[in-house]
Amino acid sequence: MDVKYMKKAIELAKKGAGYTSPNPLVGAVIVKDDKIIAEGYHQFYGGPHAEVNALNNAVEDIDGAVMYVTLEPCSHYGKTPPCANTIAKTGIKKVVVGMKDPNPIVAGRGIKILEESGIEVISGVLENEVKEINEIFIKYITTKTPFCLLKTAMTLDGKIATHNGDSKWITNEKSRKYVHQIRNRVSAIMVGIGTVLQDNPKLTTRLEEKESSDPTRVIVDSRGRIPLDCNVLNVDSEAQTIVVVTELADKDKINSIKEKGADVIITPSKDNRVNLAYLMKELGKRDIDSVLLEGGSTLNYSALKENIVDKVISFIAPKIIGGEQAKTPVGGNGIDYMKDAITLENIKILRFEEDIMIEGKMTNN
Amino acid sequence: MDVKYMKKAIELAKKGAGYTSPNPLVGAVIVKDDKIIAEGYHQFYGGPHAEVNALNNAVEDIDGAVMYVTLEPCSHYGKTPPCANTIAKTGIKKVVVGMKDPNPIVAGRGIKILEESGIEVISGVLENEVKEINEIFIKYITTKTPFCLLKTAMTLDGKIATHNGDSKWITNEKSRKYVHQIRNRVSAIMVGIGTVLQDNPKLTTRLEEKESSDPTRVIVDSRGRIPLDCNVLNVDSEAQTIVVVTELADKDKINSIKEKGADVIITPSKDNRVNLAYLMKELGKRDIDSVLLEGGSTLNYSALKENIVDKVISFIAPKIIGGEQAKTPVGGNGIDYMKDAITLENIKILRFEEDIMIEGKMTNN
Repeated sequence: MDVKYMKKAIELAKKGAGYTSPNPLVGAVIVKDDKIIAEGYHQFYGGPHAEVNALNNAVEDIDGAVMYVTLEPCSHYGKTPPCANTIAKTGIKKVVVGMKDPNPIVAGRGIKILEESGIEVISGVLENEVKEINEIFIKYITTKTPFCLLKTAMTLDGKIATHNGDSKWITNEKSRKYVHQIRNRVSAIMVGIGTVLQDNPKLTTRLEEKESSDPTRVIVDSRGRIPLDCNVLNVDSEAQTIVVVTELADKDKINSIKEKGADVIITPSKDNRVNLAYLMKELGKRDIDSVLLEGGSTLNYSALKENIVDKVISFIAPKIIGGEQAKTPVGGNGIDYMKDAITLENIKILRFEEDIMIEGKMTNN
Repeated sequence: MDVKYMKKAIELAKKGAGYTSPNPLVGAVIVKDDKIIAEGYHQFYGGPHAEVNALNNAVEDIDGAVMYVTLEPCSHYGKTPPCANTIAKTGIKKVVVGMKDPNPIVAGRGIKILEESGIEVISGVLENEVKEINEIFIKYITTKTPFCLLKTAMTLDGKIATHNGDSKWITNEKSRKYVHQIRNRVSAIMVGIGTVLQDNPKLTTRLEEKESSDPTRVIVDSRGRIPLDCNVLNVDSEAQTIVVVTELADKDKINSIKEKGADVIITPSKDNRVNLAYLMKELGKRDIDSVLLEGGSTLNYSALKENIVDKVISFIAPKIIGGEQAKTPVGGNGIDYMKDAITLENIKILRFEEDIMIEGKMTNN
């Protein structure tokens, strides 16, 4: 029974995807006599929490009812009053929680408030599923660095472009549309200067159906080679462009980039490249909780080596192009032995017509 | 109804996989009063055909019954008398056929014999499925060249080995076991000399559960560089090893290879390499109806470019190793533009624990 209603709450939580950042996705249902009498979810950042929405939506008297909520009700005054106190004042007799607040400083406080008000609390129902929908929130709240999603697209023979750099298109329209949906859900999208020079992308979210928001554009460009007339510095977008350089970049160029309206982050250099771990902390400070890395071969290898990647999404098109010199998703020096390979777990597969998408989380070694 | 029983016949046909070559897989069921009263399949090359096995297995009087058979009953005296005539002598009143004999010279003759005996014949039921189980037979009977299955195994970043050549192991045990099952079903396995020099494989079928047979080992070695003490020339196996060279190979070396008991095929050279289209014809003459190509980067590219590949099976392990210099499944010069990519269709996906297998047939452009 608990599982059934928690599933419903998870389903509701997912509806907020793309709008709650940096808050978590939360869903809640209120059940009485084995019947759902109210539903709610956290719809947008700053808006009422899921529990409050559910309480407001109740179609029957909630006295003696059970609330199922994906995340432990909050115990602090933020943009809204603490939900735990609000719930305690209603007639709810039992609260079933998917997971405790991942923030170690406040975890358990909301539950304590409920229990002290005489409400029975059960915690940890469908915990893995709940953690999954809030992987971004959990990473960010616990580390203050963004959740990094590495996205690649390759042919069935492992290439991201032909030997002379043509990559239009590896994947089909449906796959590319899905990437735009992901862009709509993350705070930032990150590419290397190589991609800007080769493809001159706009890095905006292009979705037709509904209101979409552009992510912050992050360009990793250690020497400040970015052309001032490139699309990412001139695109019509509400989102900021951040150019990331090292001290190797020319001061005048940095000023010119700033004059174009872009933000510039200067990181210490690591092997003459941008220090990505440092960059992630800087992005975290700017409220960026999630980064979609659509890098080229070299940047992807650096990101994996510096251990900033949390999840990999790999699109594979059933096409073969050959080419000893053609680039692959991850370049660099590479690992010496198969036994030391970076491994992924929790593998999921999606199909977009003939294209295949493989998703996996980094295994913590 | 027809579909239901044809599905059963297909299921039976598949039981012969690995044992009927160069004959097709054929299954048959006999149905009376909507009840299966007999089943049969072609169990091994030279053995009775599926129809005869079904007739012999009947548990009830077959008078007035319907036979479902995946392939048009034969009309010729081969290792056994023509099935069409045998069926005509029983009381079978109707025969439902999956597909006509793919051999254009005899197609329709078996059906004609049945119809002339007053038996109703329906043809083309689940034809695509039936064609699929006999893709090898159909290719071979119509072209006299073997069906070529290109098998690759790569990491999620498109590598078949680390930058220094380590490839043990990309895929997991279950995936590798499945490859041995494929080896058990094909007539030959083909690799390039690079693979022999790098990995010194045995190229035998290693399956525990049941009797398995080794495929003929074909080594593409244009200059005759094969070491006389390598495993493929010294393995304890009932199957032949064929070394394929061009006129560039040393005559004495060719003789030494022959003295080791191997067969040597000398092909004209094409860009200093073995002419693979010529080789396929030679293998066809030797009754090899199917080749599993487990080549390296270079041989795979040549095979695709020379258009000898019918199907690709690609194993993908959720591992990342990086390496700009690491080899990918298909090397060579490569194709210039994405729009000219070789495309696959009929994409199927299998999972072997965390590994993913993608299978597709070459699109005929």
